[in-house]
Amino acid sequence: MIIYGKNAVFEYINNEPGEINEIILSDNSRLINNPEIKNIKETRGIKISTQSRDQLSELCNSNNHQGIVARVNDFKYSNISDVFNIASERNQKLFLLILDHIEDPHNLGAIIRTAEFLGVHGVFIPKDRACDINPTVVKTSSGAVRNISIVRVTNLSRLIEDLKKKGIWIVGAEGKSKTRLYENDLSDLDIAVVIGNEGKGIQKKVKEKCDYLFSIPKRGKIDSLNASVASGIFLYELSRQR
Amino acid sequence: MIIYGKNAVFEYINNEPGEINEIILSDNSRLINNPEIKNIKETRGIKISTQSRDQLSELCNSNNHQGIVARVNDFKYSNISDVFNIASERNQKLFLLILDHIEDPHNLGAIIRTAEFLGVHGVFIPKDRACDINPTVVKTSSGAVRNISIVRVTNLSRLIEDLKKKGIWIVGAEGKSKTRLYENDLSDLDIAVVIGNEGKGIQKKVKEKCDYLFSIPKRGKIDSLNASVASGIFLYELSRQR
Repeated sequence: MIIYGKNAVFEYINNEPGEINEIILSDNSRLINNPEIKNIKETRGIKISTQSRDQLSELCNSNNHQGIVARVNDFKYSNISDVFNIASERNQKLFLLILDHIEDPHNLGAIIRTAEFLGVHGVFIPKDRACDINPTVVKTSSGAVRNISIVRVTNLSRLIEDLKKKGIWIVGAEGKSKTRLYENDLSDLDIAVVIGNEGKGIQKKVKEKCDYLFSIPKRGKIDSLNASVASGIFLYELSRQR
Repeated sequence: MIIYGKNAVFEYINNEPGEINEIILSDNSRLINNPEIKNIKETRGIKISTQSRDQLSELCNSNNHQGIVARVNDFKYSNISDVFNIASERNQKLFLLILDHIEDPHNLGAIIRTAEFLGVHGVFIPKDRACDINPTVVKTSSGAVRNISIVRVTNLSRLIEDLKKKGIWIVGAEGKSKTRLYENDLSDLDIAVVIGNEGKGIQKKVKEKCDYLFSIPKRGKIDSLNASVASGIFLYELSRQR
C-alpha cells in the first residue's frame, strides 16, 4: 500500500517502522536531511529514494502528498477479540464505533482520527459498499489507523446482535430523533455508537436494533451535519460523560 | 459566482431564488423534470440550460458537481452590526465564531455548516491569508453560507479587543491547555469561540487575548483533531451548556 503526507508517513516511522518498505521524497525535498528519516535508513536499511513531485502525484493518485510517500505493508485489520482485549487491558467500559457504510475516504479518515483521539477501543466497518482503509484514509486520519483496531464485518446487523448479547448498548445517530444526545447518562454502560452513511443515514434494519437513537440539537435551518463532525460530537459527548 | 452540487443549489432555490442567474444541468439529467426547477424557471424566468458533465466539471473546477451547477450573484458578506442584530432579535446571549486563518475550503465549509446548524450568530474570517467563501465552501457547507452572517475583518486582534470591550468573552481552542472544554460553565455569557489554523493553531497574539483556552480531552496517541471536527465539538459543548 502507498501512503503519503508528512503526518501519515511520520506516524509510521515512529510507531510501525517495520511495516515500511521504502520512502520516496520529492526531488530537492529538505526531508532528505531529516534526522528521523536518516535514522530509519541507517538502523533499518530502508531504501530512501527521490522522484519528481509529478511522479509522486501519479504514484498516490493525489497531489496532496507534501513531497513524502512511503510503500508500506498492506493494512492489517483486527478481529473483534482484539477490541475486547484492548478495553479489558485498559480496564474500561467498552467504547465502540460502528460505521454504517461511510463512503467518503476523507470522512472515514477524519472519523478514525477522532475515534483514536477520544479513546474508542475499536471501529467496525462493513466489507461491502463502503470505503476501505485506502491511502487517502491513512493520510486524512493523520496515521491514526495505526493506533486503533479496525474490524471489517460482513453483516452489520449480525454484529449488532452479537454485541447486544454481550450486554453492549447500541446508540444510533439519527437526526430525526426527539431525544437529544445529552439527555441520557450512559457513562456506566458498555456502548457502541452507530453512525450512518453520508446521504442515507443508518439503514432501517440497523436502526431498528438500536437501543437508543439520539439527535444533535439543531437550532439553524440546515438539516444535517457532515458525517465526521456528527461522529466527533457523538464520541465527544459519550467520552465527556465518562 | 459558480456554485455546484444538489444541496448547495437547492439551498439557493429554496431560500434565495432571486440571487440565481442561471441553472446548468448535465445532459440527460433527471433534474430537468424536478418540480422546484420547473417552478423557478416558470415563475422567475431563470434560464435552465444543459451541458456535458465534462463541461460542468470545467466550469466549477471540480467533478463533484452531481450534474447541477448554478451561476449566482457574488457572495455578500455581512457586517458586525448585522450579527449583533440577529442575536438581539433572537433574544439570545451572543454566540460567535472567529476563524483564525482556516485554509482548507472543505474545512471552512464544514465549519460554517456546523455553526449554522448549532445556532451561531456570526462567523468572522480574516481578509488575508485565509480561505474565502468560494464555490467549494458553498458546496461543502450544503448552502449554509446563505443562512448565517459571515463577516470579513482586516485584523483579528482588533476585532477581539472590540468584542471584549462589549463584554464578550473569548474562548480559544488550544490542544495544549490543561483546562478541559467542559470544566467551566459558560452558559450565561456572551461568547466568541476562536478556532486556529489547521497546522499552526491560534496565532500567539490572538491567543494572548483569549479569556479562556480549553482543550478537548485526549485519550489516544494522535495529537490533534481535524479543524472542522474540533470546531464541531467546541460549538456543540457551548451550545449544550446553553
